[in-house]
Amino acid sequence: MFKAGIIGATGYTGAELVRILHRHPQVELTALTTQSYAGKPFWEVYPHLYNYVDLICEERDLEKLIGSCEVIFVSLPHGHALALAGEITGRGKILIDLGADFRFRSPDVYEKWYGVTHTARELAAQAVYGLPEIHREKIRPARLVANPGCYPTSVILGLAPLLKNGLVEPESIVIDSKSGVSGAGRGLSLNTHYCEVNENIKAYGVASHRHTPEIEQELSLLAGVEVTVSFTPHLTPMTRGILSTIYGKLTRPASQEEVLALYREFYAGEPFVRLLPAGMLPATKMVSGSNHCDLGVVVDRRTGRIVVVSAIDNLIKGASGQAVQNMNIILGLPETAGLEGPGVYP
Amino acid sequence: MFKAGIIGATGYTGAELVRILHRHPQVELTALTTQSYAGKPFWEVYPHLYNYVDLICEERDLEKLIGSCEVIFVSLPHGHALALAGEITGRGKILIDLGADFRFRSPDVYEKWYGVTHTARELAAQAVYGLPEIHREKIRPARLVANPGCYPTSVILGLAPLLKNGLVEPESIVIDSKSGVSGAGRGLSLNTHYCEVNENIKAYGVASHRHTPEIEQELSLLAGVEVTVSFTPHLTPMTRGILSTIYGKLTRPASQEEVLALYREFYAGEPFVRLLPAGMLPATKMVSGSNHCDLGVVVDRRTGRIVVVSAIDNLIKGASGQAVQNMNIILGLPETAGLEGPGVYP
Amino acid sequence: MFKAGIIGATGYTGAELVRILHRHPQVELTALTTQSYAGKPFWEVYPHLYNYVDLICEERDLEKLIGSCEVIFVSLPHGHALALAGEITGRGKILIDLGADFRFRSPDVYEKWYGVTHTARELAAQAVYGLPEIHREKIRPARLVANPGCYPTSVILGLAPLLKNGLVEPESIVIDSKSGVSGAGRGLSLNTHYCEVNENIKAYGVASHRHTPEIEQELSLLAGVEVTVSFTPHLTPMTRGILSTIYGKLTRPASQEEVLALYREFYAGEPFVRLLPAGMLPATKMVSGSNHCDLGVVVDRRTGRIVVVSAIDNLIKGASGQAVQNMNIILGLPETAGLEGPGVYP
Amino acid sequence: MFKAGIIGATGYTGAELVRILHRHPQVELTALTTQSYAGKPFWEVYPHLYNYVDLICEERDLEKLIGSCEVIFVSLPHGHALALAGEITGRGKILIDLGADFRFRSPDVYEKWYGVTHTARELAAQAVYGLPEIHREKIRPARLVANPGCYPTSVILGLAPLLKNGLVEPESIVIDSKSGVSGAGRGLSLNTHYCEVNENIKAYGVASHRHTPEIEQELSLLAGVEVTVSFTPHLTPMTRGILSTIYGKLTRPASQEEVLALYREFYAGEPFVRLLPAGMLPATKMVSGSNHCDLGVVVDRRTGRIVVVSAIDNLIKGASGQAVQNMNIILGLPETAGLEGPGVYP
Repeated sequence: MFKAGIIGATGYTGAELVRILHRHPQVELTALTTQSYAGKPFWEVYPHLYNYVDLICEERDLEKLIGSCEVIFVSLPHGHALALAGEITGRGKILIDLGADFRFRSPDVYEKWYGVTHTARELAAQAVYGLPEIHREKIRPARLVANPGCYPTSVILGLAPLLKNGLVEPESIVIDSKSGVSGAGRGLSLNTHYCEVNENIKAYGVASHRHTPEIEQELSLLAGVEVTVSFTPHLTPMTRGILSTIYGKLTRPASQEEVLALYREFYAGEPFVRLLPAGMLPATKMVSGSNHCDLGVVVDRRTGRIVVVSAIDNLIKGASGQAVQNMNIILGLPETAGLEGPGVYP
Repeated sequence: MFKAGIIGATGYTGAELVRILHRHPQVELTALTTQSYAGKPFWEVYPHLYNYVDLICEERDLEKLIGSCEVIFVSLPHGHALALAGEITGRGKILIDLGADFRFRSPDVYEKWYGVTHTARELAAQAVYGLPEIHREKIRPARLVANPGCYPTSVILGLAPLLKNGLVEPESIVIDSKSGVSGAGRGLSLNTHYCEVNENIKAYGVASHRHTPEIEQELSLLAGVEVTVSFTPHLTPMTRGILSTIYGKLTRPASQEEVLALYREFYAGEPFVRLLPAGMLPATKMVSGSNHCDLGVVVDRRTGRIVVVSAIDNLIKGASGQAVQNMNIILGLPETAGLEGPGVYP
Repeated sequence: MFKAGIIGATGYTGAELVRILHRHPQVELTALTTQSYAGKPFWEVYPHLYNYVDLICEERDLEKLIGSCEVIFVSLPHGHALALAGEITGRGKILIDLGADFRFRSPDVYEKWYGVTHTARELAAQAVYGLPEIHREKIRPARLVANPGCYPTSVILGLAPLLKNGLVEPESIVIDSKSGVSGAGRGLSLNTHYCEVNENIKAYGVASHRHTPEIEQELSLLAGVEVTVSFTPHLTPMTRGILSTIYGKLTRPASQEEVLALYREFYAGEPFVRLLPAGMLPATKMVSGSNHCDLGVVVDRRTGRIVVVSAIDNLIKGASGQAVQNMNIILGLPETAGLEGPGVYP
Repeated sequence: MFKAGIIGATGYTGAELVRILHRHPQVELTALTTQSYAGKPFWEVYPHLYNYVDLICEERDLEKLIGSCEVIFVSLPHGHALALAGEITGRGKILIDLGADFRFRSPDVYEKWYGVTHTARELAAQAVYGLPEIHREKIRPARLVANPGCYPTSVILGLAPLLKNGLVEPESIVIDSKSGVSGAGRGLSLNTHYCEVNENIKAYGVASHRHTPEIEQELSLLAGVEVTVSFTPHLTPMTRGILSTIYGKLTRPASQEEVLALYREFYAGEPFVRLLPAGMLPATKMVSGSNHCDLGVVVDRRTGRIVVVSAIDNLIKGASGQAVQNMNIILGLPETAGLEGPGVYP
């Protein structure tokens, strides 16, 4: 059994990590640290885990954590992993950061969009962007994994086959994403107050959301040219799920069948990407509770555009499930360990 | 008091017509016809109106209706108004059709997208597209008004100032709309079954939704050139509201302030279009229960695109409220009669 | 035009007061005070009122408020009205308090359940419990009205005819209430965080909720004997509405028709209580957005119990609508002024 | 590997059976029959199972089913299992019926409440009421298990320790249950139409719901005397979950600690009943996606009543999970096989 700890365990992504690792056959969760609930049993903070998880929330003791764990997950607001990463990786432990601190090849881009000084620039170069379907071979030997953002996961997986094959014009991409509220975390704000969200949809971060440069970095790598996108996230009245509707101009006429075949080939053998047959489109509820990314593709001859619809559970494939997937790859475990199965429906 | 009747009163748009007309100071609702509930008091079908509306649902008797009403609203599935329109308008009565039968200048376009033969082509030429903010002067003398679709209302109002001023490239427009479930009506289907919709978002009618040609017709008129759009509607877990997020390439650099000024001028004096100040964006709940269309605009210099966000209550400004607004214009009443006030929040 | 002001205007009940008073034909809203948003236009805090309400949120200046208003609504957490009441009523102005400070005939009961010292005991005697259907004649001359709690409103109206007629055993009453989240206000807490409430129902305050003694006070008055009840509120995933299901043992066999007749007589002429015909039961959505209390009654011969179902919109009949109803009575205005009409459905 | 088949697989309880059995380590699902979707892959009907379940929906061929399966689950509307049961059990196969046909010791009670003639009276005597925590030893050798209704499961588990110990007065019990919509199944009706349910709570079946005699049968058995209850179910705006709030008069004063200890002892060793510590109460979301029944108890000295709150996932412990639990018991498998783990939160 490998041993794992979580720094920042009491947010929603932390709680999902706990749930997933608890059922993981080859990993034992040994420590949960938190700022707010130290001393409390974790099940008091998350009663659905009553009778399952006996761990007590602890104050952070990095030394102890490094001493006792092979893998440390960090689930903190951006900026906080910068100071932890050197110590953890320097001692030979695996760090999987669910925040944004190490997602950017260029620390300058990070500083510009996040308004924070990148104090661990030398580590940024070692960090691997943890999207297994794209970077699996780089993840395998990594010690520092930057787990992708939820929106970027849905978008990059949706566009990769097209960009890799030069089928979509790089400047034509428009991404319209709809997210459940859990993506905003368990922290209180008027934006996530029940009465403000229920029966309500709104756009936010228009032309300014921080996932934009993350999306562009990865799409540019796939395309081999600079890709600039319009990305608009929306807050919607549901707890879980992201649906990204992605529009791009085809560089040449292509049939629905041709494009589907291309996706099928690109994702052949992938356990968590499900390409839906022609005529079916993803819906968030169909992936809820699972580590899947469901994809549907429609070629629109009338406009010369392709429309890709991508659905994930933002807390699983968009966060904690993907983090465990990355851990499995690095530890040489079956990639699906702890992540098997469809979600619960309805 | 003018007298009005509704054909197809027991759907959601019919019920909203009843509610709005009931509080209208200068119109008396005298007849409600329905296929399914004839003989029942209307309040049994819609108990929120108990003690307010005493009308009994009747089987349709067109002759009687024409004899007793100045205005007849038709709220039936597409195809059904074709046979009624000639009789009603021929007898000098005002017909406001909430369906699609008379929305198209070209009956051919209608036939192609709706798969129905247009059996009242001569009337199509007389029909006016009832979007008051765009066609008010044509509506005034009309006898046959084609009330716009819900999605088109949100989209056309969102784009009109840009297209009228040549500020957006006609081939660049992408429209991503999110609708509440009431837009699908009260008819039963698995798509509107609670457990299938709740906690779920999905796209539908991708590259094929029937509101596409309606949007294109009106945008083309505004632009003076052919406009082709990508339009994707989504079903979302809420009852009321449409949020349309609209993307277009600017034809020339323009500042946020300049564009806002242009919108402000275009909609000056309009009672139901609210242009939000810079920094604010629409949300469906802010217009729910009202006849408003709220608009927000963001210029994205990085991509050269403009993003317009438009919010309506699909059953009011997107259907029954707009129908009453059209009626008010034709009858020479204050345009806001029966439609005053903000909605209820939260 | 009478002039009114609101102390504590930016909570949900405050916002509903603003909306209702804005459309009131004989009252002008002149001042809104708030702790948190002073200096901001009210529509920035509640954008659904954009273009309707131009008032700026002010810091509280009681002197100025008393000088300029005939009616002052206080919508603050309990304990805060105690210090304001003397000054306002002493200067001959009408105070309608939406909090609990003056709801109890016995300040001792208030102190025991609320854990606060009652510092205005002499005023407690003058205060009238503002449930018009029960205390209308006492409200008429009052200067200090204690607006009832939301749960008590639904419960007392549901039980009054039975207790007044000695038809239910005083010790047998069980009240199970289900509330929308807006009853908890706009203040942030984990309990009202979207993801914690959505798809979730829970009981709270079991055997200890502060509305219990308020309910018992009024039921005892109606019954003429001491009434003790079991009352359990529940938090449910909706924004508005309270449904109270009330159980009691009949003191003698009675038929459904007999009981309905008794209710019909008790509430004859009441504009806001709707007794549903046999076979129909209330639902919260049927009263949402209105000042109604809908009642349904089922006699269960098998168990000798009667089951009363009562539905209100917690923010309207359960708070701000009832407050305006009380104001109308005191000012000698039509009791329904500003409160007319059914709500919006669906 | 044991082999299992499902008759009526395409309802929600059928789909949950498929999901649970698919991950069951010792049971193979070999046949799914359905009236409506014969010939279609099951994943087309339930796309969340895409890539997991390859079975094709079949028309019912009872002979073939009996020939190939050791266990047959029947998930059909009441009345339909009556004709199937003799054939299945006569051939030595295990029948687990998720409907009501065999839940009653007295076929007369069944006939009275369900309005159907009981055509398999001789089998009724052999059937075991499949609530393992109460009837485990009788279930073990059974061939015909009547899987309990969803409401009765939550109620009986909530009251069993009290009745078994004579702590609650048999005539004093009031049960107020709140259910998610999935309990009504996937069949279409206005009652489960999204817009009618969302933001709405209503009572139904007041004093007449068919789960009443089922509850009374089991409570009477536990108490050793006739128990008559008032039971009111409510439809609430969520997909999954039942919360039952249960009220009863204590037969003698008892402390909270004493009662909790009694529950703890009664359910000692039960894998699926979680008694919450004092101060915590169940919430439906805490059991959603799991086979748990969470219980909380509050003694109210003021009224002499006890309030029990019970939460289950209606489709799992309230239907398909419990059915698999019964199967495990009969087959001699670990009772938790296929049912392990907490649900997903939030």
